[in-house]
Amino acid sequence: MDYKFIDGGVTAPQGFTAQGVCASIKPSNTTKRDLALIYCNTLCNSAAVFTKNLVKSDAITVTQEHLENGKAQAVIVNSGNANTCNADGYEKAQQMCALTARALSVNEEDIIVASTGVIGQMLPIEPVIKGIEMMKGNLTKEGGTNAAEAIMTTDTVKKEMAMEVTLDGKKVTIGVIAKGSGMIHINMGTMLSFVTTDAAVSSQMLKEALLEAVEDSYNMVSVDGDTSTNDTLAILASGKAGNKEITEKNEDYKIFVSALSELFKVIAKKLAADGEGATKLLICNVSGAKTKTDAKGIAKSIIGSSLVKAAMFGADANCGRILCAIGYSGMNVDVKKADVSYKSAKGEIEVCKDGLGIQFSEEIAKEILLEKEIEILVNLKDGNGQAEAYGCDLTYDYVKINGDYRT
Amino acid sequence: MDYKFIDGGVTAPQGFTAQGVCASIKPSNTTKRDLALIYCNTLCNSAAVFTKNLVKSDAITVTQEHLENGKAQAVIVNSGNANTCNADGYEKAQQMCALTARALSVNEEDIIVASTGVIGQMLPIEPVIKGIEMMKGNLTKEGGTNAAEAIMTTDTVKKEMAMEVTLDGKKVTIGVIAKGSGMIHINMGTMLSFVTTDAAVSSQMLKEALLEAVEDSYNMVSVDGDTSTNDTLAILASGKAGNKEITEKNEDYKIFVSALSELFKVIAKKLAADGEGATKLLICNVSGAKTKTDAKGIAKSIIGSSLVKAAMFGADANCGRILCAIGYSGMNVDVKKADVSYKSAKGEIEVCKDGLGIQFSEEIAKEILLEKEIEILVNLKDGNGQAEAYGCDLTYDYVKINGDYRT
Repeated sequence: MDYKFIDGGVTAPQGFTAQGVCASIKPSNTTKRDLALIYCNTLCNSAAVFTKNLVKSDAITVTQEHLENGKAQAVIVNSGNANTCNADGYEKAQQMCALTARALSVNEEDIIVASTGVIGQMLPIEPVIKGIEMMKGNLTKEGGTNAAEAIMTTDTVKKEMAMEVTLDGKKVTIGVIAKGSGMIHINMGTMLSFVTTDAAVSSQMLKEALLEAVEDSYNMVSVDGDTSTNDTLAILASGKAGNKEITEKNEDYKIFVSALSELFKVIAKKLAADGEGATKLLICNVSGAKTKTDAKGIAKSIIGSSLVKAAMFGADANCGRILCAIGYSGMNVDVKKADVSYKSAKGEIEVCKDGLGIQFSEEIAKEILLEKEIEILVNLKDGNGQAEAYGCDLTYDYVKINGDYRT
Repeated sequence: MDYKFIDGGVTAPQGFTAQGVCASIKPSNTTKRDLALIYCNTLCNSAAVFTKNLVKSDAITVTQEHLENGKAQAVIVNSGNANTCNADGYEKAQQMCALTARALSVNEEDIIVASTGVIGQMLPIEPVIKGIEMMKGNLTKEGGTNAAEAIMTTDTVKKEMAMEVTLDGKKVTIGVIAKGSGMIHINMGTMLSFVTTDAAVSSQMLKEALLEAVEDSYNMVSVDGDTSTNDTLAILASGKAGNKEITEKNEDYKIFVSALSELFKVIAKKLAADGEGATKLLICNVSGAKTKTDAKGIAKSIIGSSLVKAAMFGADANCGRILCAIGYSGMNVDVKKADVSYKSAKGEIEVCKDGLGIQFSEEIAKEILLEKEIEILVNLKDGNGQAEAYGCDLTYDYVKINGDYRT
């Protein structure tokens, strides 16, 4: 597959405009953008996948209903309030769609709605009314970046990406925005991500493509082991690129899935690197496992260990933490075969061989672990199973941010 | 069951003496006791349960071999080094037993050995030789407290308890010491605990009793979700109390299990309260679940959530964190029925009713959550399943301790 990353995000594909404004969803917020609107000038095929948490935002319920016909034309998203576990949550999510539909002169059922922020506090609707009014005549290509900003919560950098890929001889563009930060764990672990494309793809194939593409990307991210209540990954396909519509799992479908997967992997790393309080991106690469499932389980167990995460924060090359997390992963593994190395831009150092701690230079290990991006390499020498998981270190700031999250 | 907590620990029961000394297992440690010896003047029935982590200390392998005949007479334990993932770990564990056996003139096969501390670093044997020599002629009733101190790692307080209970008309005494702090999670989650008793109980019934007693106590503790490689819970029964030996699951057996369970629950709370960096003990009580298994799974999910733990550190009455953890527990639960309250010595406050966030006084909630012992009460109103789990808050100090654990 040939592909090219290009500037931009959800407005890169043909047909899409967007905007993000400060609507003061939280009254105390008077500067940060907190309401985003993504719009396509034509009705799109659409699909979405959601959190597996039994506690769900009502926004998800409403979006699920609206996507039953596989069609959507706009996405309205607020940050600052999750609209979850509220008595009037369903009604508010419907209202958000109705207000958006009226402003854009589209059907209410063609609106995707999502929320992120504090759980269990009523969502005020006045700021939403005001915010939609502000964005109404102001949806532009440039507004895509504002939308990426508006969905951020404790994120410190916005996540937007775009890519060009060729399908059926036509240049097709895919754009993504996402937010992450905390309450992130591996079961559709993105919090929120919206994808736009001008490729022609049926709703059914969009859904299948999302499910395949998240497997090695979004579903391999963990910040803190807490699966959010609001995770939503939605895609809209305008079809304006003019390729033959993908309606089955043919070659074009495979290229499309690969393109999504590549995009999502880059975003997954951005989500992990910008995890709440994080100072380091951790990439755990497990090879030589008996199966791919074992490799994934082990990589997730390591990346999810509080002790591994705290050791990485302290640049402490403690191989015991890694071996311990392999041992309790619940996977089928012969720990006596495990080799473990740490790697960064400064070099690579082996700290464990055949399941045993070995002598190594603490000085060199420290130098390697003081970098911002650390690879934890585990070779189990017991098969061809391979997987990569993405996480971050556990820091004072994670505790600080979440010790008083609501204020 | 009538029982009475009494002063003392492992030397409270008849026949047992102990000692703990500073053997400088870590050369940098010149003051903290780090080698413990527990001895009985008669051969005991004995049993033990161990970590379910696939990565295991060689001390566990040796102890398992020695307990095949269900007999033991002494326990040798070091802190400061886990003797895990070392090429010579098995040999060193055997050496510890041989040295202890020679000093006490007992059989090598009747020694239980355990280690706790850093993984993957060779255990120096010279300090062990020196330490055993120091303790040899100095095993006393008073030495029990020193043994409790010697098994501590990052623990800030020693854990020892003793209890009197009547079996077959005879007064029977049970003593326990334990260490906890970090790398603690719910699958035989004690790190190390040694139990002595003068009750007469067969080895088989001791094993069954341990397995039953840990279910609602040690196995319901989580500090950080990491299951240790060295967890060992061992019991020695001298039979000196003169009761008819328990050889089947009769009334006496039930009393014995209840006594162990009560003791372990108290110690479990101490382990949780003294978790690495902890400032608060969290007790999560789940009632009204469909089954006991569901109640346990939900209580563990809540107590294990980094977000719940960080919110408790910050005394933030965030009900969303609790509901979220219920939702991803993987248990069979109707979240729309969940009521959630926080309770402490200052009072009780409901923050969630029927799965929805409700209005409450932030001021009162703050006052309640600033206490050192917090109960998180979840009523699912959906059955009779009930369970309690024990944990602690996530603090800056947890990150600090584990950011540089090995130095």
